[in-house]
Amino acid sequence: MTVTSLLDGRAVAPSGVAFRATHAASGAPLDPEVYPAAPADVERAVRLAQAAAPVLAAASGDTLGALLDRIADEIDADADAIVARAHAETGLPEGRLRGETGRTTGQLRLFAHEARRGTWRDVRIDRADPDRTPAPRPDLRSMRVPRGPVAVFGASNFPLAFSVAGGDTASALAVGCPVVVKSHPAHPGTSILVGEAVARAVAAVGLPAGTFGLLLDGGHDVGVALVRQPGVAAVGFTGSRRAGLALAAVAAARDVPIPVFAEMGSVNPVVVLGSALADGGGTDLAQALAASVTLGAGQFCTCPGLVFVPEGTAGDAFVAALAESLAATPPAPMLTPAHADAYRNGVNHLGVEADLRVRVDAAGTSAGAAVAEVRGATFAATPSLAEETFGPATLAVRTATHAELMALLEGLEGQLTATLHTAPEDPEAAAVLAALAARAGRVLVGGVPTGVEVNQAIVHGGPFPATSDGGSTSVGARAAERWTRLVAYQDAPDALLPPPLRDANPWGVPRLVDGAPESDGAA
Amino acid sequence: MTVTSLLDGRAVAPSGVAFRATHAASGAPLDPEVYPAAPADVERAVRLAQAAAPVLAAASGDTLGALLDRIADEIDADADAIVARAHAETGLPEGRLRGETGRTTGQLRLFAHEARRGTWRDVRIDRADPDRTPAPRPDLRSMRVPRGPVAVFGASNFPLAFSVAGGDTASALAVGCPVVVKSHPAHPGTSILVGEAVARAVAAVGLPAGTFGLLLDGGHDVGVALVRQPGVAAVGFTGSRRAGLALAAVAAARDVPIPVFAEMGSVNPVVVLGSALADGGGTDLAQALAASVTLGAGQFCTCPGLVFVPEGTAGDAFVAALAESLAATPPAPMLTPAHADAYRNGVNHLGVEADLRVRVDAAGTSAGAAVAEVRGATFAATPSLAEETFGPATLAVRTATHAELMALLEGLEGQLTATLHTAPEDPEAAAVLAALAARAGRVLVGGVPTGVEVNQAIVHGGPFPATSDGGSTSVGARAAERWTRLVAYQDAPDALLPPPLRDANPWGVPRLVDGAPESDGAA
Repeated sequence: MTVTSLLDGRAVAPSGVAFRATHAASGAPLDPEVYPAAPADVERAVRLAQAAAPVLAAASGDTLGALLDRIADEIDADADAIVARAHAETGLPEGRLRGETGRTTGQLRLFAHEARRGTWRDVRIDRADPDRTPAPRPDLRSMRVPRGPVAVFGASNFPLAFSVAGGDTASALAVGCPVVVKSHPAHPGTSILVGEAVARAVAAVGLPAGTFGLLLDGGHDVGVALVRQPGVAAVGFTGSRRAGLALAAVAAARDVPIPVFAEMGSVNPVVVLGSALADGGGTDLAQALAASVTLGAGQFCTCPGLVFVPEGTAGDAFVAALAESLAATPPAPMLTPAHADAYRNGVNHLGVEADLRVRVDAAGTSAGAAVAEVRGATFAATPSLAEETFGPATLAVRTATHAELMALLEGLEGQLTATLHTAPEDPEAAAVLAALAARAGRVLVGGVPTGVEVNQAIVHGGPFPATSDGGSTSVGARAAERWTRLVAYQDAPDALLPPPLRDANPWGVPRLVDGAPESDGAA
Repeated sequence: MTVTSLLDGRAVAPSGVAFRATHAASGAPLDPEVYPAAPADVERAVRLAQAAAPVLAAASGDTLGALLDRIADEIDADADAIVARAHAETGLPEGRLRGETGRTTGQLRLFAHEARRGTWRDVRIDRADPDRTPAPRPDLRSMRVPRGPVAVFGASNFPLAFSVAGGDTASALAVGCPVVVKSHPAHPGTSILVGEAVARAVAAVGLPAGTFGLLLDGGHDVGVALVRQPGVAAVGFTGSRRAGLALAAVAAARDVPIPVFAEMGSVNPVVVLGSALADGGGTDLAQALAASVTLGAGQFCTCPGLVFVPEGTAGDAFVAALAESLAATPPAPMLTPAHADAYRNGVNHLGVEADLRVRVDAAGTSAGAAVAEVRGATFAATPSLAEETFGPATLAVRTATHAELMALLEGLEGQLTATLHTAPEDPEAAAVLAALAARAGRVLVGGVPTGVEVNQAIVHGGPFPATSDGGSTSVGARAAERWTRLVAYQDAPDALLPPPLRDANPWGVPRLVDGAPESDGAA
């Protein structure tokens, strides 16, 4: 048996040099052989997507909603096989993967709801006034429309929720953009199982097979070729900064540049104020933080890799408790041998530049937790300490004064999340929270940053380099806006207007008419 | 008397080599001498803007609205002097400049309304559910916040509405972003008059003087230095494609790349179907189109530079009537001698590649109208004919069949506008309109594309290269979104939340609470 890319609803013929996924826990190669997409497959995937684009753009919210609900149903129906394969390919625990399956289908159903409701269309109508002077006012009606085919890059660390049928795919389909996925080389088997579920759903609701394509590759060539295809209108990416910036450069160098919405991770600073450590409150916090650092072997975009802790006895006790909890956490397999190697190098670097307090030994493809400690002045003088160590490691930065803490926060780059632990009435809390909110997409007061809700209010984004564009989020309802552009119709007769702009509003989408929300669903 | 940049509410000391504006009609140098901003001025402008940013970010919609209203009032109070100076510097008729003043103040007042209403904040609240399983649901509250200091580049062709206090400045201030303007070298006197009006308004409402800065320059150095300043968070630009792409490249090469929202003009195709020419209907249309081509000496971003006309007798008569109307239009001064030279070269090029039907003679800084004609096949084979000739020229492309027309439309690049003239029941109209809507930000059925309404529904944008980002508009209420990013607060106590996210909603902004619009203004 071999695995190949999925185009036009079918597996393509194998070509090129096959690769295999790796069993995450053992490091052994996994069957079956996986054939990379050929250059002609990339072109064909985009050509099919372009042909499907007008059909999807004209589809009603009900049709798009039915597609998304059906994808969720197909995944649910095949969940056992998907979870088993993902467990082998990623080493993530089955319980976690069950949860991620639920998050993925929940996300698809959220976007089904958004597609049906149509708020994303942002319909605005300013009606004509033939009596206006000096010139009559024309009738103007505008809305968001799909950009066209979207290239989605699957992430290694969420083989379901940020992969083939993850948030980028769901949000793009919700607004009527065809999707061509370049799946992550670490989990091709999982990708094909999910891709087949999507293809079945596309067929079941009667949309063109070009609505969805899945391209496999063990390296980078297929992804670059995909972004270069003139028919691709936008790119969604979750992964490393290096890969995200490389794709952004490819997209910017096209004859027609296209936007790349790249989520590139961050160190997710946690600030523990002295007031949060009063009355022995630090022990629970240290345990919760250690659990967050080691969740999924630390391979979360929101893993808290940096903790600011005040100098002094209470801070010492907190760091000791954190070290103790991390020391007690058993090693866990990382996503790939390459991830494990990179993590070991990162911890070595922490040991050179900072005081390594705990380093849990782990062999082969596994990673053991680590925590290092450093004084604020050293942290400020060592920019590499502010970089992400992808895996279950964190760095405690000890600060002497509020002023030193504020100066260090001002020096941080853009973050996905930032967390503040404080007593309610701490007078320093407001300034710290403002500094965190100035450089993160989501700020927490209490709690841990791992675990991302999928709803209306969530923001999973943040200023560069956490993402390529702090103006957007890749999780939650607002993620759909990324795949849209604006079109206005001036003085067009009702019969020539798209349904959401017609007087009768046949799809019942929310609209702003002459500056006020339309109450009765018709202009 | 000399003119210098405006920082911290005051004129800076003169330095460097002075330049002068040119009297548009005569080509003579205009007093006074204008001194360019020094490198230290650029740095200081951004430093002041950064210091003002937190104040503006925390300002209520009422405060921001008061600022914008006051700017409009100050411009109204100084309108005579502004219009007289703009007339001298740009050669645009005083009547047109009066109208543009009204458009500019109307735009400021629209954004005052938007600032007060606060819809742009897109507030979403998903409340906690402590009983949810397997994990409690946190309280999540998010909204759009200002990105920070915005660099605005004034355009030559709208010395008021797209310049110092134009749409980019108004929309950035509306969301609480400080603005540093690099004004266009062709109208420094107008820029200073308007800049002083803005500075008076900033002082009057008690905001920091760093809220607004104005940098002068006769060349490109100040603009490039401004975009390179680390404190600048985003760029607004209206002008040529060459300059827009150059600024985008500078912004992308920064350590922290920033978005450039560039409106770079287009040829604004007009499609005249045979059904629109029945019963002699072509004569009125030809006259209206000629008036649109020559409006403001053709120096509008929305000037219709390309007209698709069917072959045959009715089409011949339409092109003849268009030529006749253009031949009867007197020459008019262009914005600068450089614009007049570039226009003459552009018309020469039309004469080489197409059949020049009319070319009105004009000397010196003036431009005479021109219309050229070409067969569809020649147009398809000559890509340079699809490029903008900035000035009062248009090109009639004659098409033999519906299929030929559709193929030519498919080959067009992104446009700000596209216009269709058709009889109501023409069976070809729907397909043509869909093709136009696929590549333009605003499509008109009937009428002419010049004249851009400023309201909720307007879209002044379009796919690349009309703008750098087809996802946005530079005119109308939606323009404000460009200057914002997203921030979510998770489990933050009410007292630490910004006012729009607090339970009591003290500013009364519209909010989505648990997925539904809040009816009573409080969560």
